[in-house]
Amino acid sequence: MSESIKVSQSVNAANNIIAAQNRALFAAKKIAVFNMISSPGSGKTSILERMAQTFGPALAVITGDIQTTFDADRLTAAGATARQIETHGSCHLNAHMVEAALAKVPLDDKRLLVIENVGNLVCPSAFDLGENFKVAVLSVTEGDEKPAKYPALFTRAKAVIINKIDLLPYVNFSMERVRKDIERLNSSAAVFPLSATTGEGFEEWLHYCGTLKG
Amino acid sequence: MSESIKVSQSVNAANNIIAAQNRALFAAKKIAVFNMISSPGSGKTSILERMAQTFGPALAVITGDIQTTFDADRLTAAGATARQIETHGSCHLNAHMVEAALAKVPLDDKRLLVIENVGNLVCPSAFDLGENFKVAVLSVTEGDEKPAKYPALFTRAKAVIINKIDLLPYVNFSMERVRKDIERLNSSAAVFPLSATTGEGFEEWLHYCGTLKG
Repeated sequence: MSESIKVSQSVNAANNIIAAQNRALFAAKKIAVFNMISSPGSGKTSILERMAQTFGPALAVITGDIQTTFDADRLTAAGATARQIETHGSCHLNAHMVEAALAKVPLDDKRLLVIENVGNLVCPSAFDLGENFKVAVLSVTEGDEKPAKYPALFTRAKAVIINKIDLLPYVNFSMERVRKDIERLNSSAAVFPLSATTGEGFEEWLHYCGTLKG
Repeated sequence: MSESIKVSQSVNAANNIIAAQNRALFAAKKIAVFNMISSPGSGKTSILERMAQTFGPALAVITGDIQTTFDADRLTAAGATARQIETHGSCHLNAHMVEAALAKVPLDDKRLLVIENVGNLVCPSAFDLGENFKVAVLSVTEGDEKPAKYPALFTRAKAVIINKIDLLPYVNFSMERVRKDIERLNSSAAVFPLSATTGEGFEEWLHYCGTLKG
C-alpha cells in the first residue's frame, strides 16, 4: 500500500509541474481559463454552446471524453474553437493531456478558454490542469443533496452553475438547501441558477464570464 | 509509468481475491447480488426505495457514498436492511469495503442484495465486488448519447434501467437511439425504461428481480 501511495504522489507531482507550465502559458497569452466539472449529463456542453453564441471564436474549448468526439463537434458547430481529448478509459483529464491539446489550439485571439472535463463529479477535482479556477455544474434533476455528498468539488469551485432550472416544476429540488450547503462548504463561491435550454438566468453568467481577466 | 501499472495490477489482483471470497459467501447463502452503477443523481436510491416496498426486509442494500449516510437512512426508512459505506474520497467501492460491510449485514433471511455503488459512471465499472452481475442506471435527463460516451459500463452491464421516463416530455432524449447504442455495445443486455417517481414500467423490473437466483 505504501508503494501505491508513493507512486500516486509522484504521478501528482509530475502533473503539477506540467500544470504550472500550462498556467504560465495562459498568463503570457492573457487568457482566462476555467476547468468545468460535473456529473455526466449536467449540461456542460449545452452551456458552452450557448456561451459560443455570445463569445464566438474568442471562446476556446478543450473538451475531454472517454470516447467519441460528439462534444467538440457540437461546439465547433456552435462557433467556438474546440478540440477534443479522448482519454480512452481515464476518468479525468490531467495536465499533460491539456498540454498536448494546447499545441493544436491557437490562443492568440482568445479571451476565454474552458477546459470541459470528463463527466465525473469525483476524480477530476483532484487534478490541477493549470486553470485559474474550477467551475462546478449541478443540474436540478440530480438532486439537492449532491454538494453535501460530493464535497471535494464544491469546496474547490470558485463558481457553481445550477443548470436545468426549467425542469424545477417537475422535480423535487430545494434551491435553498443547495445554496445553504454550498455556502457552508465554500462561502465565497458564486452561484448561478440558469437554464442552458431556455436561457433563463444566462445573462448573469455571461456577465461574470465577461469580467474574467487572464 | 511501468511501476505505476505494476502497482495498479497488484491492487486489482488483491481486489479480485476478496471479490472471489465475497462471491463464495453469496453462493453459500443462495442470495442474488447485483452491483448498481450510475452517475450521481440517476435515481439509484429512489429505485431501491420502491423495491423495498415490494421486497421489504428480504432486500439488503450496501450503499456507497464518498461522504454522508443519507442513502442508507432513506433505505432503512423504506423498509430495507441497509448499511452505508463512506469511502471518504474514494470514487468507487472495492471488494474489501464490501467484505467489511457484510460483517454487519445479516444475510440469512435475504433473497436479494444490491450493492449501490458511488455515483460515478466511470471508475466503479472496473472493480469486481463479488456480485453476480452489474446493473447500469441512466436517467433520461442525462442525454441519449451516454452509452456511446461511457461504453465500459454499458458493455459490462447485464441489465440497464432507463429511469425518469416521467420527464421524457420535457427533455430531448431518443429512447430508440439509446436502445440501438446499448444493443450495439451489448446485445444481451435487458433494458428497463421506468420511473421510480410514478412507478410506470416498474412492474417489469420487479418481475425481473423476482426471477433472480442466488
